[in-house]
Amino acid sequence: MQPVIEVPDRTLEDALRHRIDRKTKPLGALGRLESLALQIGLVQQTATPRIRKPHWMVFAADHGAARSGVSAFPQEVTWQMVENFLAGGAAINVFCRQMNLGLSVVDAGVNHDFAPRSDLIDAKIAYGTADYLQTPAMSRTQVEQALSRGREQAHALADTGCNLVGFGEMGIGNTASASLLTHCLTQADLRTVTGRGTGLDDAGLERKRSLLARALARGGRPTDPHEALAEYGGFEIAMMAGAMLGAAERRMIVVIDGFIVTAALLTAHAIAPTILPYCVFAHRSKEPGHTLQLAHLGAEPLMDLDLRLGEGTGAALAYPLIEAAINFLVEMASFDSAGVSEQSH
Amino acid sequence: MQPVIEVPDRTLEDALRHRIDRKTKPLGALGRLESLALQIGLVQQTATPRIRKPHWMVFAADHGAARSGVSAFPQEVTWQMVENFLAGGAAINVFCRQMNLGLSVVDAGVNHDFAPRSDLIDAKIAYGTADYLQTPAMSRTQVEQALSRGREQAHALADTGCNLVGFGEMGIGNTASASLLTHCLTQADLRTVTGRGTGLDDAGLERKRSLLARALARGGRPTDPHEALAEYGGFEIAMMAGAMLGAAERRMIVVIDGFIVTAALLTAHAIAPTILPYCVFAHRSKEPGHTLQLAHLGAEPLMDLDLRLGEGTGAALAYPLIEAAINFLVEMASFDSAGVSEQSH
Repeated sequence: MQPVIEVPDRTLEDALRHRIDRKTKPLGALGRLESLALQIGLVQQTATPRIRKPHWMVFAADHGAARSGVSAFPQEVTWQMVENFLAGGAAINVFCRQMNLGLSVVDAGVNHDFAPRSDLIDAKIAYGTADYLQTPAMSRTQVEQALSRGREQAHALADTGCNLVGFGEMGIGNTASASLLTHCLTQADLRTVTGRGTGLDDAGLERKRSLLARALARGGRPTDPHEALAEYGGFEIAMMAGAMLGAAERRMIVVIDGFIVTAALLTAHAIAPTILPYCVFAHRSKEPGHTLQLAHLGAEPLMDLDLRLGEGTGAALAYPLIEAAINFLVEMASFDSAGVSEQSH
Repeated sequence: MQPVIEVPDRTLEDALRHRIDRKTKPLGALGRLESLALQIGLVQQTATPRIRKPHWMVFAADHGAARSGVSAFPQEVTWQMVENFLAGGAAINVFCRQMNLGLSVVDAGVNHDFAPRSDLIDAKIAYGTADYLQTPAMSRTQVEQALSRGREQAHALADTGCNLVGFGEMGIGNTASASLLTHCLTQADLRTVTGRGTGLDDAGLERKRSLLARALARGGRPTDPHEALAEYGGFEIAMMAGAMLGAAERRMIVVIDGFIVTAALLTAHAIAPTILPYCVFAHRSKEPGHTLQLAHLGAEPLMDLDLRLGEGTGAALAYPLIEAAINFLVEMASFDSAGVSEQSH
């Protein structure tokens, strides 16, 4: 898959900056919201941007390596949490309701048969990946399948009129997969990108680190994103990367959550670097590798709330800031329109 | 004025922590939202807290010292911005509309006669303070008036059923006043608590620092909050301090904005230290003295967006996080109710 993502035209930049600077506030006083307003204006190519039908996609899948003990939770929690999403009881449900965000759950490869449900997208590649301690996690064909299915889902979402999509994930063992991908696609060493995930204790963290070192001894450190996904990826991570690429192709704002979502973005970015201007980085996860991923991408997230939950919850919590950036740009009075005097020196 | 603010009973703490820990998420994974949920549960003394009629109060007043050049903007901007608030064109209007927050503007002492308006509270003490470079900014009687009027306003708000109030301010020259108050009420030296305000350049900042040093040479460094307010305060700052105290007396959540609002809280806190458990610190302002104020209060704000606008805008932007903390506590499923397996080690 080779997506075509155009870099937003910057012709409008001066006009947008002028509009921001003429608002009734000291120059630069809205800080991060000002750069966000500029970014969104450029993505939408207008000085009066608007969010239509904001939607969250949560990708779920299982990891063969989970059975070797890379997570504090048993593998069945993946499907149980998917049921929790569908019943509306998880944190992401609460926050999407609060923020008026649409929510779809995508079965990218959960080790479970779900009864069909209207808000569950069945895109299962397989019943979980293979254990990367033994063999590659997936075939190159599966990588391509996951990427294309994700891309198609994003295009389908764009066809509904949605122009902003937030990403989340669920998959027991997927911080381990994200650590390996981050190690392959950035300069970071394995130890510093491997954290406690959902809550490993010191002994658990050491075991995870030695398991991941064993995986690397088997599969090496591929720097090609497709190869890295094949060796160590998860179906939810690969499909999410495809959906991010598809969303940027359709000029949607892409809201990036924490460590695992950013690992997916690292692969998407390695496939098409022009995805970056479409991305809004919501928060800095407590998982230490997230900071290294963000540095690699040159990204500064909006918030730091010590979150490490996943599901796209950090992205949802940042959504009001995105709305606020647009609202001030569109609705605030200017010095001229409000008759307010200007800075005297 | 000696307000009576009860420390919230902590009997419920264990039950609240247990409820938070049983939610379907890794232990502690919602980070700052978890401590916020605990705080609000204790303030409201319930495991199912609820926000009723959230309301923002923006206090405006003028400062005699503004005419000596402590600000980058001319003094008339204070009343012009009040008109902008009343017309709905300022940043705080935009954010209050977005977040569904009520908004009142309080004339605590603006150097202007406003036509009466339903959303403007006329509580004017005088047409601006005296210039603290020459004499105390206000009399002790005016300090008491401002504190009591603020307290009454908060009580009146509580009587409408509101249980959460955010604070904002407008007053050309009030970062200078806030710097002097912060210097008096904390250990911080004047230089480090004096910043660029609405946007002074290097020369302007140096002039502001030398003017404030002259003010201190005249008025000294009183550590009593009433005396400090009399020497250097603003009517908006004193009235806001009174309103904060009145709000905490009525067990409302008090949402703290940036540098000037926190200066008001420093005086309120010096009057009644038990106000702190009622305060939610919204954001860290770009004004450098704010970090020193927060350290003095042992407070860690929710966000850091490089804001330096005032008006209560940072507090309004953090409001969805407060809602989110309550919503997860009240609405999320537990491991038991959702049938999700628990951490295995």
